[in-house]
Amino acid sequence: MKPADWLILQKKVRFGDCDSAGVIHFHNLLKWSHEAWEESIEIYGIPCNDIFPDFSIRKSQIIFPIVNCEANFHAPIKIGDLLKVKIAPHKINTHLFQVNSFFIKNGNKVAEGKIIHCSLDVDSRNKIELPDQLERWIEASNVSTNLKEC
Amino acid sequence: MKPADWLILQKKVRFGDCDSAGVIHFHNLLKWSHEAWEESIEIYGIPCNDIFPDFSIRKSQIIFPIVNCEANFHAPIKIGDLLKVKIAPHKINTHLFQVNSFFIKNGNKVAEGKIIHCSLDVDSRNKIELPDQLERWIEASNVSTNLKEC
Amino acid sequence: MKPADWLILQKKVRFGDCDSAGVIHFHNLLKWSHEAWEESIEIYGIPCNDIFPDFSIRKSQIIFPIVNCEANFHAPIKIGDLLKVKIAPHKINTHLFQVNSFFIKNGNKVAEGKIIHCSLDVDSRNKIELPDQLERWIEASNVSTNLKEC
Amino acid sequence: MKPADWLILQKKVRFGDCDSAGVIHFHNLLKWSHEAWEESIEIYGIPCNDIFPDFSIRKSQIIFPIVNCEANFHAPIKIGDLLKVKIAPHKINTHLFQVNSFFIKNGNKVAEGKIIHCSLDVDSRNKIELPDQLERWIEASNVSTNLKEC
Repeated sequence: MKPADWLILQKKVRFGDCDSAGVIHFHNLLKWSHEAWEESIEIYGIPCNDIFPDFSIRKSQIIFPIVNCEANFHAPIKIGDLLKVKIAPHKINTHLFQVNSFFIKNGNKVAEGKIIHCSLDVDSRNKIELPDQLERWIEASNVSTNLKEC
Repeated sequence: MKPADWLILQKKVRFGDCDSAGVIHFHNLLKWSHEAWEESIEIYGIPCNDIFPDFSIRKSQIIFPIVNCEANFHAPIKIGDLLKVKIAPHKINTHLFQVNSFFIKNGNKVAEGKIIHCSLDVDSRNKIELPDQLERWIEASNVSTNLKEC
Repeated sequence: MKPADWLILQKKVRFGDCDSAGVIHFHNLLKWSHEAWEESIEIYGIPCNDIFPDFSIRKSQIIFPIVNCEANFHAPIKIGDLLKVKIAPHKINTHLFQVNSFFIKNGNKVAEGKIIHCSLDVDSRNKIELPDQLERWIEASNVSTNLKEC
Repeated sequence: MKPADWLILQKKVRFGDCDSAGVIHFHNLLKWSHEAWEESIEIYGIPCNDIFPDFSIRKSQIIFPIVNCEANFHAPIKIGDLLKVKIAPHKINTHLFQVNSFFIKNGNKVAEGKIIHCSLDVDSRNKIELPDQLERWIEASNVSTNLKEC
């Protein structure tokens, strides 16, 4: 498996994603950023239920609430657009990680998203170390970035 | 408290609710139907957490999955519209209840929604009797309907 | 191109699609039903902008508002589920068409959706014949259904 | 009319706003930030169709695409929460304006949003001066802020 397999994804813009001005509802970009890293860890080999538990079945001990998100829009994103979504995860410290997303249309970056997650114990709500699985995915993603930069 | 207080609500249509053709994303109507009965039980006096539990804190024993929903659209619903939302809950049998919603704009019915919920035990997923609180809300709502029809 | 190519699609359920009870927000099923037929006509060869115009660029003469939609849920749909989405479009009369969607998980039908669209002239809001492109897609889809039933 | 009338709003968190971890889908906060300033201009006296046109009826000459948005989350926002939403609009330059939103629960700031809009000519996509109506709303909002700070 090449790193690009789990770091470069796709998103087709649909009618229901767009507003009366013919461009996407802006907050959808952040929704897609989240979906992109969900898809990424899955392709990398982490079952999504390990990270996003079904609380109606069992209580998970770690949750990953978002503490900050941001999006920049450089050009209109419209119905029918096929976007390439490149993601870049980074570890900020023991309990924080960030996922950047770059949305590319016909070779041009049209938008970018950033989401910062915090790792918390669900009961105490204390900060807790990122799980090993997430650590490995982040490291493997950055190895590939480093290699490309050599 | 008059029955109309918990059965007649309002919804203002916002930019983000609408699509490229200038009308609401159709599935929003069903989202609003659900929000309307949430608001209704709250006004009636049932704490929403009694019905819609926060599973990250404690496991609730009863859930109310939707088994059927339907919507009819009679006229365009557009940004800026102020809709009157009349709801009418009904008990179908021991474990099923239905909430009808009527969306009215300038005195005309522009759409209607219907949602049927099933009462289930969260572990066994067996059918279970509707909780007393919901029963009372449904009964009180129908008394008012009957009175109006007299 | 085999008919199944444009009539059998896929949907992966993501974290953001689900609610506090661990199942999908019910109205998402109808959103996905719409996205499924958008994807279908595109695979069949109809550019989505022919059907879903960008009004900020040019005014389209025909719009397809939804007059009725319905969904039935047979089993829980949860995060991580990979659904097969089979769609079946039908012409009701000169200006109405219906798209049924069947959501299948591990070989079992877990939900189904139905959307009925009306073909309208955007200015007069009079009923208007379905465009030829849509007619052809509906016919080709039903030929395949008929063949399978022989 | 007191400035607080159009700058301090409310949002009730509903079941459909929340995810499997029992908190809001993070991007909803930005959706609500947008809805808050829509509601604000309306209370202030600007018809929403002046700012958010219905392109299916007539083409508006000015659009306000979002160029940047950001949100910070300080504490969980959950189903049933009644949030006070304070907004603060600012003019950045002739064609850019920013709306900050502060979400308050039981007297504590639990989240904040920021949206930056650009004023564009819909055809040329050139930057264009903010319309007078928006200018007046921004000025009136800041007068009130200044007064409070005296």
